[in-house]
Amino acid sequence: MFKHLHGGNLERAMEKYGISSEKIIDFSANINPLGFSSKTREAIIKNLDRLSHYPDPECKEAKKEISHYFKIDYENIVLGNGSTELIYLIVQTLKPKKALVTIPTFCEYERASNNNNVSINFYKLKEKQEFLLSMDEIILQLEGIDLVFLCNPNNPTGTFLSRQELLILVKEIQRRKIFLVIDEAFIDLQEEESFIKEVKNYNHLIIVRSLTKFYGLPGLRLGFTVANSKIIEKLEKQKIPWSVNCLAQLVIKDLFQDEAFIYKSKQYILQEKQFLYNELSNIKGLKVYKPSVNFIFLKLLGNISSEMLQDRLGQKGILVRDCSNFRGLEKGKFIRIAVRKHKENIILIKELKMIFN
Amino acid sequence: MFKHLHGGNLERAMEKYGISSEKIIDFSANINPLGFSSKTREAIIKNLDRLSHYPDPECKEAKKEISHYFKIDYENIVLGNGSTELIYLIVQTLKPKKALVTIPTFCEYERASNNNNVSINFYKLKEKQEFLLSMDEIILQLEGIDLVFLCNPNNPTGTFLSRQELLILVKEIQRRKIFLVIDEAFIDLQEEESFIKEVKNYNHLIIVRSLTKFYGLPGLRLGFTVANSKIIEKLEKQKIPWSVNCLAQLVIKDLFQDEAFIYKSKQYILQEKQFLYNELSNIKGLKVYKPSVNFIFLKLLGNISSEMLQDRLGQKGILVRDCSNFRGLEKGKFIRIAVRKHKENIILIKELKMIFN
Repeated sequence: MFKHLHGGNLERAMEKYGISSEKIIDFSANINPLGFSSKTREAIIKNLDRLSHYPDPECKEAKKEISHYFKIDYENIVLGNGSTELIYLIVQTLKPKKALVTIPTFCEYERASNNNNVSINFYKLKEKQEFLLSMDEIILQLEGIDLVFLCNPNNPTGTFLSRQELLILVKEIQRRKIFLVIDEAFIDLQEEESFIKEVKNYNHLIIVRSLTKFYGLPGLRLGFTVANSKIIEKLEKQKIPWSVNCLAQLVIKDLFQDEAFIYKSKQYILQEKQFLYNELSNIKGLKVYKPSVNFIFLKLLGNISSEMLQDRLGQKGILVRDCSNFRGLEKGKFIRIAVRKHKENIILIKELKMIFN
Repeated sequence: MFKHLHGGNLERAMEKYGISSEKIIDFSANINPLGFSSKTREAIIKNLDRLSHYPDPECKEAKKEISHYFKIDYENIVLGNGSTELIYLIVQTLKPKKALVTIPTFCEYERASNNNNVSINFYKLKEKQEFLLSMDEIILQLEGIDLVFLCNPNNPTGTFLSRQELLILVKEIQRRKIFLVIDEAFIDLQEEESFIKEVKNYNHLIIVRSLTKFYGLPGLRLGFTVANSKIIEKLEKQKIPWSVNCLAQLVIKDLFQDEAFIYKSKQYILQEKQFLYNELSNIKGLKVYKPSVNFIFLKLLGNISSEMLQDRLGQKGILVRDCSNFRGLEKGKFIRIAVRKHKENIILIKELKMIFN
């Protein structure tokens, strides 16, 4: 049977290590460590009766909330069952012949392309250059390409291209009429760098966003895409009806209104990210990449492989993401760790010190 | 902007008639009139914290529950975001060249085929024959066909083919290696007639089921497909990860365990269906088709068109399904009415009597 190989698979971990879900500390999925807001919880409980009705297939109220909160036009938005549905929908709708994917990155761009018979050119980010993408180099790869996938900030490396830098590529793809899909699933901490307000100026630019990572609700499934209204119309025509369940649609309002939770989450993640970064940097045998997001990318320099490390931590109920199945990364060498609660981060550091020191 | 034209679109009705959702009685969507079980409600509230984790992409526990309850093998099951995701997934995966669709029927078979460049032969059910499908006639239509879509019981006509009858077609498609997709979204009242236990014997048979219509949870999105394990494996490979949210996965157990709710729902629907059928049959100007399911199909014999009737009832907050946009039906003539609570059914009958008598 086909296996999905992502982080955050608690079921597989429970089975493999024989540990109940409450005893697992999950550093393998990049989710807000504070969970979700109590206002969201209240909204769901209060509106449970809505489950007896079909969700609005056009997601009108939810779109209005997003439009208002992000100050983008209603007709530039389409909602999806997580950002993943949107990645597949974009490929199915635009039917590119050849896509360019920089690697290592989130594997669903490759899978969505394969499932739709789109051939892929992979462009490998260089470890020597700390996996940073150079605009000059990617522009040299555009010949014969219809669509470029870019994850920014990038998963799993945590590297981030500023708006200023990326604008060079955005202008180039516009000039050459190539579609550019920027997956901004992890941009919440740098919202001002997002391209969602630029789709009116660049009709080949498509932005994918998640609403469940930063807002702590990956189990609910909610993402959105921002693009020129002509592209949005095509996506809506291709999309299956009702893919966004009614609870996902109705919580959006409450997500955005809980400013205290948003502020607290940002502060907490920034603080704990710094804490984890400092502590990890003190452990011998680890190369720690400077994070721009709510997760940290590590290289194991010694004899312990990433599988071994994942297993040793897993047996203690600590899940980390072995990056061996990311195309373009040396197997057995890389690990991704999400920022979690302070107490949990301390437990991880303690265990890592016992293993490495 | 693209408009979805299904029943159950409360948002559109609220906008059109200026009535708040609480004041609407929705006969336009075919959902359990008793809503959902209190045990399901409790399970959701108790497990809300699960929303902070990704859903299991393989839906293992949910599949086990379905396997156990329906007595079918685990490897013959795939879960979906409602039965609709599965209809699209089947077309994307099996990539037929030409599909046969009997009409009038649920429009998503046509849309899924169009979106995947599958050409369609439509076979029109005859009003003279009360829209009943004859096995002899459909078998004559199979030349050059790769995949047949059949909705049984059929939406919107409510016609039903017994297992015994359908077996003739099932054997024929097996012999000719044509895929047959039977959408059993409304079969819950005749579970013993389902083909879900037969997929081991017929490797070209694919059954689509819904878990949200009878169980009263259309807002949650949950359906499943049963087929030969080789087909299931292909569907799993093509499917997007996490499309079934974690609440949908975790309530399955509780849905099946609340036997009292299931029994009560079946009795209630059967009783109210009979009540509605009898009352509607007494109204002049209506032809009432004998229902096999939780909805009733009507023809308007006089001067009032289905649009006019929908509008007149809509202004009173009563939604019915104008069937004018079903391909293969005479426009302006047909209406579909879901069975609802006794009090609500009385209100509908009273309004219809005022209009027609």
